Amino acid sequence: MLSVNRIKFLRSLSAKKTRVFEGLFTVEGAKPVAELLGSAIKIHSVYAVDEWITQHKQLLAFSGAELVPVTYTELERISQLATPNQVFAVAHQPQAHLDLNTLGDKLVLALDDVSDPGNMGTIIRIADWFGIDTIVCSPNTVEQYNPKTVQATMGSLFRVNVFYTDLLPFVEDYKKAHKNPVCAAVLGGDDLYASPVKSPCLLLMGSESHGLSVGLINASTHKITIPAAVGSKAESLNVGVGTAIIVSELRRR
Amino acid sequence: MLSVNRIKFLRSLSAKKTRVFEGLFTVEGAKPVAELLGSAIKIHSVYAVDEWITQHKQLLAFSGAELVPVTYTELERISQLATPNQVFAVAHQPQAHLDLNTLGDKLVLALDDVSDPGNMGTIIRIADWFGIDTIVCSPNTVEQYNPKTVQATMGSLFRVNVFYTDLLPFVEDYKKAHKNPVCAAVLGGDDLYASPVKSPCLLLMGSESHGLSVGLINASTHKITIPAAVGSKAESLNVGVGTAIIVSELRRR
Repeated sequence: MLSVNRIKFLRSLSAKKTRVFEGLFTVEGAKPVAELLGSAIKIHSVYAVDEWITQHKQLLAFSGAELVPVTYTELERISQLATPNQVFAVAHQPQAHLDLNTLGDKLVLALDDVSDPGNMGTIIRIADWFGIDTIVCSPNTVEQYNPKTVQATMGSLFRVNVFYTDLLPFVEDYKKAHKNPVCAAVLGGDDLYASPVKSPCLLLMGSESHGLSVGLINASTHKITIPAAVGSKAESLNVGVGTAIIVSELRRR
Repeated sequence: MLSVNRIKFLRSLSAKKTRVFEGLFTVEGAKPVAELLGSAIKIHSVYAVDEWITQHKQLLAFSGAELVPVTYTELERISQLATPNQVFAVAHQPQAHLDLNTLGDKLVLALDDVSDPGNMGTIIRIADWFGIDTIVCSPNTVEQYNPKTVQATMGSLFRVNVFYTDLLPFVEDYKKAHKNPVCAAVLGGDDLYASPVKSPCLLLMGSESHGLSVGLINASTHKITIPAAVGSKAESLNVGVGTAIIVSELRRR
């Protein structure tokens, strides 16, 4: 049975402030937690109904996580989902270090103030699909451990490293360290399909409402645009969709 | 001032059943409603605060819509948004007719049971960007007038025709009428980038949880897959993201 204090603690992890202070984050649902247990991430504790425990005995034993059997009623009390699903886990935030020297032969993604947790999750999932293991975010970009982001990544969060740093100095350092293109996704830039940009490179994507900051656009070496159909009145594409199209095109080449 | 009956009526439009019965749908927010007024869609009524009315006098006069000035408090009572934004409009659902003969020289999109309103909105926005004016949906696909879908289309809903019909007979009829490829997005199909498929064609996208039905896969002429990076453990891409990547690639060719 869960103590009142434990419930209070678990619920407090829905706040970013607490997650940062404790260095923890939460994962919910049968499939995402199974992926978490199979990943390299250190687990703090797992709260699961008997049915789930029975099915995942081996995975649990291997992870060495503290296991707390709970009832469905208890799960509802700690869950952040509308419909809780068998298991709730707490994990330690990995302390990865951003090493500029390892980025030279990769496609690297940088996000400037992306604010929607769902978009962030979608982008992490895209990165995982296309083999991008590093995303560098401006400090105001939504936290990768936001529960909605964790949910939207469908397990990809455990396989992609997400860093937060001031992007302008990062881009300048990247340019000093590597001769690769720094590619800004903008409106009114060069046609993506005709652009010579290839991976390895650094791809800069802007926020939903304001796009990329002027400083970052100026620091880039290439400005590219996904061309709309002739006569289209659509003003823009969702940032997740834009990222997907550009990354796919760079991977194709 | 809004009567109690009017408020009741406007709130009832949050239910699909009422929208279908009345042949109406709702649009909220300064920008989406301005796009609605500028479109060919027939407007039923507009509920706006003074500030918005002053800014959009010409557009309103031109539309011939019934205009009801409201206070912010009244707007909150009829709104389906967490933070209502200046204006709420009711519009007539256009009665477009799906004409198979007009589809032969186009890229046409078909959706099999896509269920998330946000994904549906994203896909309509992608279609608008890439100049796709026809989306054909299975009867169980989420309604294009779902308020969350309307919101996610960012105005693109007013420029793309969305139809609902049984997809299997539709695909058979399409194949009889046109020699174009019928392209199914699947897991484990041919590499998208190496595939010979070009527009005009019919592109079939499946649901978030079950993908395409077997019948539709069998009825297709080409099975294509967005190749994941070697070693990627990601299981799939979001259906909006997948649609974006495939449509972009078909448009590029």
